Amino acid sequence: MENVKIAIWGFGAMGAGMGKMLMNKDGVDVVSVCDLHPDRVGKSISEVLGIKGLENVIISGDIEEVLNKGKIDLCLLATDSFTKGAFSKMKLILEKKINVITTAEEMAYPKAQEPKLANEINKIAKENGVTVLGTGINPGMIMDLLVVCLTGCMETVETIEAKRVNSLSPFGVTVMEEQGVGITEEEYNKRQAAGEMAGHVGFSESINMIADAVGWNVEKFEQQMKPILTTVDRKSPYGFAKAGNLAGINMTGQGYVDGEVKINMIHPQQIEPELEGTYTGDYITIKGNPEINMAINPEVDGGIGTIAMCVNMIPHVINANPGLKTMIDLPVPRAILGDMRNFID
Amino acid sequence: MENVKIAIWGFGAMGAGMGKMLMNKDGVDVVSVCDLHPDRVGKSISEVLGIKGLENVIISGDIEEVLNKGKIDLCLLATDSFTKGAFSKMKLILEKKINVITTAEEMAYPKAQEPKLANEINKIAKENGVTVLGTGINPGMIMDLLVVCLTGCMETVETIEAKRVNSLSPFGVTVMEEQGVGITEEEYNKRQAAGEMAGHVGFSESINMIADAVGWNVEKFEQQMKPILTTVDRKSPYGFAKAGNLAGINMTGQGYVDGEVKINMIHPQQIEPELEGTYTGDYITIKGNPEINMAINPEVDGGIGTIAMCVNMIPHVINANPGLKTMIDLPVPRAILGDMRNFID
Repeated sequence: MENVKIAIWGFGAMGAGMGKMLMNKDGVDVVSVCDLHPDRVGKSISEVLGIKGLENVIISGDIEEVLNKGKIDLCLLATDSFTKGAFSKMKLILEKKINVITTAEEMAYPKAQEPKLANEINKIAKENGVTVLGTGINPGMIMDLLVVCLTGCMETVETIEAKRVNSLSPFGVTVMEEQGVGITEEEYNKRQAAGEMAGHVGFSESINMIADAVGWNVEKFEQQMKPILTTVDRKSPYGFAKAGNLAGINMTGQGYVDGEVKINMIHPQQIEPELEGTYTGDYITIKGNPEINMAINPEVDGGIGTIAMCVNMIPHVINANPGLKTMIDLPVPRAILGDMRNFID
Repeated sequence: MENVKIAIWGFGAMGAGMGKMLMNKDGVDVVSVCDLHPDRVGKSISEVLGIKGLENVIISGDIEEVLNKGKIDLCLLATDSFTKGAFSKMKLILEKKINVITTAEEMAYPKAQEPKLANEINKIAKENGVTVLGTGINPGMIMDLLVVCLTGCMETVETIEAKRVNSLSPFGVTVMEEQGVGITEEEYNKRQAAGEMAGHVGFSESINMIADAVGWNVEKFEQQMKPILTTVDRKSPYGFAKAGNLAGINMTGQGYVDGEVKINMIHPQQIEPELEGTYTGDYITIKGNPEINMAINPEVDGGIGTIAMCVNMIPHVINANPGLKTMIDLPVPRAILGDMRNFID
């Protein structure tokens, strides 16, 4: 059997991380990469990653060229957060009969917010005999799939709380900007009123994934965003928050079932949380029979976690029946430690 | 669509627990039960469980009668721990074109210790167009499937440790006897030498499931059993261990990959562990990138957990392609909270 052939569309932190991870795996090759960034176009993957071995794979700005480079099994799409933005790209890939895994957060459960597009994607994938999956660490795993998996031990479930307390300190300038690290409360209020604070994308997806998995009907979904104002100066490699300003933002979300909040999501993200006594971790509390209290300390690293989830799901997606899939449709994710070809049916 | 029709073979603690759980679910009916115990044969399920509603389902000692009671979708088999013991029973059920879920611990990953029987079961299931799965809380979930699932977030994995520290206090006389609760060290040594201490069945299955899932080859498997001698008197509803005697037993197991222990299993089981400062819980530590440290406190209840896993996997097994399946082949388990028919494809 030939090596599994992968294309990557979007060679930023996530796409490049996947490229690097794949270079260290057996039985799989990155055969082509598309990226429009002037710092990257025309360079080899090896040059961009600083790793020897793929000097002959030159990053191209032309997606047609990238997708036509021989027989490609799957394209990793790491360009968008929203289904709308990723839609035409997925369509293009699928119509070339290439499977897709995307980091787009909304694509982890696209029917939550884009049911029409989800149907359309499913139809295109089926017509072309290929599969599409959205995944990542969150949504995709920590606040949804892992919750679903744990409910498997339970006879009854009353309420679910998923809490992810993470540090933004390892992240770069873009994330500092997106999450408002260092800005004043006034500036935050202004940006939020203007709809310029994105925050975490994925609560609606996670809540609907969990609810559909266990057979609940979400009647109402709400989410809130609040600034985390620091009382001490906090400094991270790419961020600085003066006492009184934003160290990050806290997002909360609720899914209502039978008139009650049955699914609670809590997700504060900030730089240097330990400076004010906040310890990072992933926490899942499920009331019911038996009650389950899970903690992962510290939290699973969001960057590596997303990269690993996308790469590790490659065989499951290639093996799956055609159509749009979500994490609850496929076998459990797993690290791919041996030759990737051994994981293909 | 008609209700899902279930038969139960073995109406002890596990089988009866599944019967009770199913009585509280919509879209599914327990249509027949086989059990040979003189206290139960000839009685209705309702009488045995002390719950109204199934007065017309009479427990029968005749498995032919039980399996021929109309069209049965799936039989829950809760009679054995070992594949050898369960084999002829599974064969009988599968040849009637009925799907099987069994609590037999070795069946969670039968190819670990019974590769020939595993092949034979797979063949019989495929010939009859039905599916067979072994599951439970452990093996089946806590020390294997959950480990596999967590590795899905990881780029590299160096070593895995799964530790389940649980209390035997809720269990009855049979478990006290099996686990040697209250016996002297001398008696333990005698029984162990005679091969009469079974301890936990499942390490080989869990280790091989994890290894196969991630692409490791287990070259060697070892396990050890040691008495847990209490320094204080311990009393549980069905057990008593005088200071100096056994409060339970500790089992450890190792899977060797590339000449090293890569998978470590630690599973002490005892009554009243808190009396000597042991707090129960399920712990998974995976070294690699990123490192993952998971804890569930207290441990997921083993009795309810096994019952729930078997019942919750019913739709996945009915939906699966024919053959022998394990937990790593099927979509993640999940609580069945709505009408079970909605979970069937």
